[in-house]
Amino acid sequence: MTKPADAEETPPPAADAESQSAPAAAGGGFSNIIQRWRREGIVKRGCVAFRAFGLLFSLLAFIIMATNQHGDGREFDKYEEYRYVLAIAILSALYTGFQTGRHIHEIHTNKEIISRKNASIFDFIGDQIVAYLLLSAASAAVPLTNNMRRGGDNIFTDSSAAAISMEFFAFFSLGLSALISGFKLSNQTYI
Amino acid sequence: MTKPADAEETPPPAADAESQSAPAAAGGGFSNIIQRWRREGIVKRGCVAFRAFGLLFSLLAFIIMATNQHGDGREFDKYEEYRYVLAIAILSALYTGFQTGRHIHEIHTNKEIISRKNASIFDFIGDQIVAYLLLSAASAAVPLTNNMRRGGDNIFTDSSAAAISMEFFAFFSLGLSALISGFKLSNQTYI
Repeated sequence: MTKPADAEETPPPAADAESQSAPAAAGGGFSNIIQRWRREGIVKRGCVAFRAFGLLFSLLAFIIMATNQHGDGREFDKYEEYRYVLAIAILSALYTGFQTGRHIHEIHTNKEIISRKNASIFDFIGDQIVAYLLLSAASAAVPLTNNMRRGGDNIFTDSSAAAISMEFFAFFSLGLSALISGFKLSNQTYI
Repeated sequence: MTKPADAEETPPPAADAESQSAPAAAGGGFSNIIQRWRREGIVKRGCVAFRAFGLLFSLLAFIIMATNQHGDGREFDKYEEYRYVLAIAILSALYTGFQTGRHIHEIHTNKEIISRKNASIFDFIGDQIVAYLLLSAASAAVPLTNNMRRGGDNIFTDSSAAAISMEFFAFFSLGLSALISGFKLSNQTYI
């Protein structure tokens, strides 16, 4: 079941042609490692990008909801659904801010703040939980906003709808990030 | 970077002792395969169990919500949140029913209805999407029920709360199942 050591068996995938050319003739093990590095580079950059999008959308949701006070009963903090949206937007902004900062720091200085193994588990669990929370908060606030809009749109309902949409976008970003970090985690555990 | 072929380097994990004893001295590759089989057996059974729990809780949510009609305005189908809960409970029951049936069939007959690679992707995507939908439906229905219960509990609000709780339990089961099938998927892609 162990692979023979000669090359010619595992050609580098043609679809994956990047700038740094891999010395493909140096044996199966080496070219595999090169492929893995490449893949990890892509994976790492993808993760950072999705978390940065998550940060952007969480911050937008936070700002839009926190400024959603127009007097005359049209204040977000009278409704527990909107308070939930705000709370989760803050939590998500803090989490994605920390994660984005940490990853960019790691890429620039090549030093690790948390050890690799722990970092993978932390990444995956954090991403997945924050994604679930974002979805839950956005879903909880939709029916209230729908009911209010039946009586006609105004700046209050429009801002609420915008904040909820931002929270949904943040959920999509973090859901994809959780997907990638789950992939990284199991990849690391197995190889 | 390629491992030497002699044994003594990878002892079988002591915590994993099961009934069938592995011939550990037969070389690293072979004992690895045995370990993998064992692990896969556990993983497969875990997946089936979580999906069966998901089916149970979805069916309970479906039955409780569908019978939640007590006349006098206390009918679930007057509220879009409760209709959403019912719709997702039906969808989740159909999905988990199909999946549980398929997996039990596969384990008993050792025949595969869908090819292995496709099945893994289908499992993971299905579990994750149904988990998100269940969480979204349950979250959306919570504020309405909370508001109703402020005026006092009755059989209508109690049944709604029970259905929502069942939907949350189904979400936990399918979330864990998605975790396991994601693990299986990336495991398969890499090795």
